[in-house]
Amino acid sequence: MRLIVQKYGGTSVGGSERILKVAERLVETQQSGCRVVAVVSAMAGVTDGLIKLAGELSPKPSEREMDVLLATGEQAAMALVAMAVNALGAKAISLTGAQAGVLTDRIHTKAKIANISPKQIHELLQDDYIVVVAGFQGQTAEGETTTLGRGGSDLTAIALAGALNADACQIYTDVDGVFTCDPRVVPDALKLEEIAYDELLEMAGAGSKVMQSRAVEFAKKFGVPFEVRSSFNPNSGTVAREETANMEDVVIRGISVERKQAKVTVSGVPDVPGSASRIFSAVSAANISVDMIVQNASDRNLTDISFTIHEADLPRAEELLAGVVNEIGAKRLSTESGVAKLSVVGIGMRSHSGVATRLFDCLGRSEINIQLISTSEIKIAVVIDGADADRAAQVTHETFGLSKAIAAPISG
Amino acid sequence: MRLIVQKYGGTSVGGSERILKVAERLVETQQSGCRVVAVVSAMAGVTDGLIKLAGELSPKPSEREMDVLLATGEQAAMALVAMAVNALGAKAISLTGAQAGVLTDRIHTKAKIANISPKQIHELLQDDYIVVVAGFQGQTAEGETTTLGRGGSDLTAIALAGALNADACQIYTDVDGVFTCDPRVVPDALKLEEIAYDELLEMAGAGSKVMQSRAVEFAKKFGVPFEVRSSFNPNSGTVAREETANMEDVVIRGISVERKQAKVTVSGVPDVPGSASRIFSAVSAANISVDMIVQNASDRNLTDISFTIHEADLPRAEELLAGVVNEIGAKRLSTESGVAKLSVVGIGMRSHSGVATRLFDCLGRSEINIQLISTSEIKIAVVIDGADADRAAQVTHETFGLSKAIAAPISG
Repeated sequence: MRLIVQKYGGTSVGGSERILKVAERLVETQQSGCRVVAVVSAMAGVTDGLIKLAGELSPKPSEREMDVLLATGEQAAMALVAMAVNALGAKAISLTGAQAGVLTDRIHTKAKIANISPKQIHELLQDDYIVVVAGFQGQTAEGETTTLGRGGSDLTAIALAGALNADACQIYTDVDGVFTCDPRVVPDALKLEEIAYDELLEMAGAGSKVMQSRAVEFAKKFGVPFEVRSSFNPNSGTVAREETANMEDVVIRGISVERKQAKVTVSGVPDVPGSASRIFSAVSAANISVDMIVQNASDRNLTDISFTIHEADLPRAEELLAGVVNEIGAKRLSTESGVAKLSVVGIGMRSHSGVATRLFDCLGRSEINIQLISTSEIKIAVVIDGADADRAAQVTHETFGLSKAIAAPISG
Repeated sequence: MRLIVQKYGGTSVGGSERILKVAERLVETQQSGCRVVAVVSAMAGVTDGLIKLAGELSPKPSEREMDVLLATGEQAAMALVAMAVNALGAKAISLTGAQAGVLTDRIHTKAKIANISPKQIHELLQDDYIVVVAGFQGQTAEGETTTLGRGGSDLTAIALAGALNADACQIYTDVDGVFTCDPRVVPDALKLEEIAYDELLEMAGAGSKVMQSRAVEFAKKFGVPFEVRSSFNPNSGTVAREETANMEDVVIRGISVERKQAKVTVSGVPDVPGSASRIFSAVSAANISVDMIVQNASDRNLTDISFTIHEADLPRAEELLAGVVNEIGAKRLSTESGVAKLSVVGIGMRSHSGVATRLFDCLGRSEINIQLISTSEIKIAVVIDGADADRAAQVTHETFGLSKAIAAPISG
């Protein structure tokens, strides 16, 4: 008998009507001849409400107590989903992370899963229960409640699917899957039938927040394929899996655009060890996350270092860097907000040459100026003016034939 | 070092401001040289909100899942209280019922405490932690979450105080303690310094809902004294304890009045076995709770049976009893709503004669008609017209000298 793990996020269980829909889908899946494990997040808004309350009590709440507090969100949701399944006449039982055998390390609020002992789940499945597990949470060997950090419910689902040797892992969200580009920007963007883990990781890191990177990395490490699909319709979604030979036939899997970025350039940095470290330790100490980092070739022992951050962080970064620029003897700090990052992603790049050239060429012909370039093995990212972002995505999507990508892969 | 258990109800932890007040009191208690265990209820409104959600999903939710769901309310509250204590610079740690060692039977939604293993609490107290325990919940030997039913947090506090051999158990509520009568009715009603368990039980059963009867019964059974006091001011409250010899010097401890009652009389009931059973099984099958039951002496093999119920239940009861009256061959069903029950309670009654006479006399002199009378060893209850309730309480309070009860006990 097939075993399916289905994960439902906060909006999918965001009220009693939605919960009943989830229950219907779980029962239908069981009736189609499957064993079913559901992993649920807290109802939309609940976790944020609890975080707000904690913030009113303490500027820096104890991380242990934060975990105890936040774990209640998923615990309530799992009981409600189990009740709804029962109300439909099927058997369901809810399990906390601890009861489901999710053992973690002791790092509160961002624990790592150490091990899963799915013995009890197997037994319940054999007794025809639909097993509803609280996502996002686990327990230490000492019996302390832990949580897995943002996106932790995806991680729970993928780890359980791996531990249970499930035949399928379905991540239900409010989008239909992973698209070649944001359909609001590129109307003929296509839903991808499949995507390699690495491609999804680069897409996620590039602003297509379908899944948190940690969950995808876990799936990659343990070889757990999963499908991202919508809980609002019955359509199939996008399957993320290990790359296969024929995936490389597609040069570019997708394009993602991240807006509201700011570009920071420190010019005339003395090319001595430690300069970059001084710059980035100042920024990261303020919890500002840095995205692209580009260092140009050194000229007369002076170099320029550029990076991008979210534009909301720019005032704070400028303040912090003013001092650092003097300290390290750099010449100038220049910044620009309102820029965007466009990334083209595809494992096909490894075996297809000329991708960068085609990208730069199509942007150039459209008179879109490229301000920064950064590449990885399977991604090329450029920083452009925010006003050009939509047009850049459209011309790139067309140039790489993404609206027909699956039907007729382009050869590079 | 003294060990104190403090229990805080839903209104006491009803928001971040209130929670900070609770934390302050916990820290002050510790700083006064005590070891402190706090037992907390769910924030006011939370439990009702969860019950409503469950009701939207299922007409009769699984009791196991109901327990899992409701237990989250206390779990969130305990974490928030612990955070607030931490924010004040003291050490606190929260424990679920399971972590606190509260072992129960398997009766979901109204489990009984089977045993408490307070080893972990003792260790944490020795490490100077303020230990914050979730009230209302426990765990079965199989690791299933259970809840203890309405008023369960009081029970948790009293059971923990017993198991820990605490020096004091304080039940914080929104009233100052137990009064000789409702101060809104009798302005010179006095707060009692002490009360015997049995008296409090009779008062609770008579509408003075300071504590649920189950918690008081548990305290009586295991000899755990406790103090009912307000979380809104620093005043001492009322200590409930085993009766002492000098408690009997006070004839009447207090008076309670229950309004919105209805009186039901079935007249001309054939005096054969089974008649009463037919009447009351019909009523209780509809979940209508019956309070006073009075059966008059039999006259020519016919008897009258009267009882009181809440007046909201009267239409349903009339409907159910119409058939029963015919079936058992009774003559007539008569009902009256808008009546009140006045109870005078005191263990002193056992050794003081004439209490009933004094009660009836003072009501008679005030032209208050007595419709039904029922007595126990330490209580006399009468049913009177609801319009007379306040006046009856006032004259009774005065007759038994309750406004000076503690200063100068009346001899009977």
